[in-house]
Amino acid sequence: MDLAAESGRDLTGLEQLKALMASGRNAPIADTLDFTLAEIEEGRVVFEGTPTLKVYNPIGAVHGGWAATLLDSACGCAVHSRLLAEQAYTTLELKVAYHRAMTETTGLVRAEGTVISMGRRAAFAEAKLTDASGRLYASATSTLIVMDRQRRPDSSPAAG
Amino acid sequence: MDLAAESGRDLTGLEQLKALMASGRNAPIADTLDFTLAEIEEGRVVFEGTPTLKVYNPIGAVHGGWAATLLDSACGCAVHSRLLAEQAYTTLELKVAYHRAMTETTGLVRAEGTVISMGRRAAFAEAKLTDASGRLYASATSTLIVMDRQRRPDSSPAAG
Amino acid sequence: MDLAAESGRDLTGLEQLKALMASGRNAPIADTLDFTLAEIEEGRVVFEGTPTLKVYNPIGAVHGGWAATLLDSACGCAVHSRLLAEQAYTTLELKVAYHRAMTETTGLVRAEGTVISMGRRAAFAEAKLTDASGRLYASATSTLIVMDRQRRPDSSPAAG
Amino acid sequence: MDLAAESGRDLTGLEQLKALMASGRNAPIADTLDFTLAEIEEGRVVFEGTPTLKVYNPIGAVHGGWAATLLDSACGCAVHSRLLAEQAYTTLELKVAYHRAMTETTGLVRAEGTVISMGRRAAFAEAKLTDASGRLYASATSTLIVMDRQRRPDSSPAAG
Repeated sequence: MDLAAESGRDLTGLEQLKALMASGRNAPIADTLDFTLAEIEEGRVVFEGTPTLKVYNPIGAVHGGWAATLLDSACGCAVHSRLLAEQAYTTLELKVAYHRAMTETTGLVRAEGTVISMGRRAAFAEAKLTDASGRLYASATSTLIVMDRQRRPDSSPAAG
Repeated sequence: MDLAAESGRDLTGLEQLKALMASGRNAPIADTLDFTLAEIEEGRVVFEGTPTLKVYNPIGAVHGGWAATLLDSACGCAVHSRLLAEQAYTTLELKVAYHRAMTETTGLVRAEGTVISMGRRAAFAEAKLTDASGRLYASATSTLIVMDRQRRPDSSPAAG
Repeated sequence: MDLAAESGRDLTGLEQLKALMASGRNAPIADTLDFTLAEIEEGRVVFEGTPTLKVYNPIGAVHGGWAATLLDSACGCAVHSRLLAEQAYTTLELKVAYHRAMTETTGLVRAEGTVISMGRRAAFAEAKLTDASGRLYASATSTLIVMDRQRRPDSSPAAG
Repeated sequence: MDLAAESGRDLTGLEQLKALMASGRNAPIADTLDFTLAEIEEGRVVFEGTPTLKVYNPIGAVHGGWAATLLDSACGCAVHSRLLAEQAYTTLELKVAYHRAMTETTGLVRAEGTVISMGRRAAFAEAKLTDASGRLYASATSTLIVMDRQRRPDSSPAAG
């Protein structure tokens, strides 16, 4: 779905995300991996999901990529929520620390992302993945680039 | 699937991975996200996959979590391929750099993981994700802990 | 200086760090780079320092290595402060994010390190570097290995 | 020293670095920490140094900040060597992996930095720190922002 096209060029990042949440639609990856955008305010978002057997690795636990996906979404959308109407962003890097293994009995987990600092050209965000009792499973930090939307045609930060 | 139970305790990591590949079975996450273990030798593995619309983010490209998943698999299995029969491993952290966006037209990509250094207690691996023409989309480095299998009951590196 | 030898094998990590602070002695690197251990409690430490021209890079600002050094100390000592008497630790990796350049007019900065999670074999810490008005200059996350002291002869986590 | 002012605005990054090396002058931090720029070509630089007791940590080995400083220089200058005359760069983040402890007997080590990918707005570099026999002590990856020089007044990527 093209949020910019559907919602108009003049929505801020926060307005775009609120419109997405209100629409009840998920990004395709969120449907594939069973998570959804649950909370959104300026500079802070929460994704929720429940890991199942379908995201298991070969050694009997939830694959690290599942946590990485939720944490990447949380970091990216936290920055997205602070964008001006004419800005866009791309993630440059994401580092995920794995504190505890998840299994199919872990239940609902929340990935809360917040902006650490943000400027005209770059932003830094962090996120934590916890279960219903607040236990920490994974955490992440991310570096993102911020740019004017019209400069977007360059689809890659490094290959422009 | 429990590789240790099925294949016996006395297989080395490399033998376990070769048995997995020979079995033609994928880990559940690999089926869910359309990738597979394609090559394996001591200290080096390759995963292959083709990104589709089902792993898209809301802004019209492949979600960063898809690359993170393949790169995590590549780093982890590269270390797995160097384990002695009595050893196990867990990933402590993964850092992914995003060089270029993937789309549904990118086609088959390969995540090649190699071991940088490995000791009795820790290992470091790296991986690169490239397309058929060798173009780089994402790269990763990872820190892993290596331990004796019998000490495994502690399901988490940091919470023991 | 050999803290273990001087202070006796049976001091906890916290007691060792308190003894170091009480001694008024700095590690050699701390003298070379003008910083010192300023606060210590279980799971949290603060290093303080003032960047000068002698740690400048060629492009007219404080070199990123100076912040990295204080943040590495802060992460490492936060974990050190939680060690049992028979434990030791080594840093596996450190990631530093640079939010704002420092100059010789920045004045006193503080690197506060805290433990995110800690188990029998691994620990995760984070640290933030701020000035007197609380402005953020750099932040870090770190992965560390925890081990029994007698296993220490192996001088390297990955090369054992 | 202000390279831009001394050497004129129209030198490329590579020319600037070559002029710096030819001048025989070190950055202040390089004098403080005993390292120097030893080799430079487009997209690849080498710093050399010998760790001494003055960069020791309290637990009897070379502080991780010393390796971080050389690796940060190596990554940054590798990108610098690819800049056009009108471009500047700033380091956004650096991740250092510690493979093996250094001591005062390690001798001369080399930090070789190379560019992984580079675009109009961002660049990624990596570096490895090895001794005379090629043994690996530390490695790093770094994310950097690339910008037009005139936009430089904003001294911070995230605080603009």
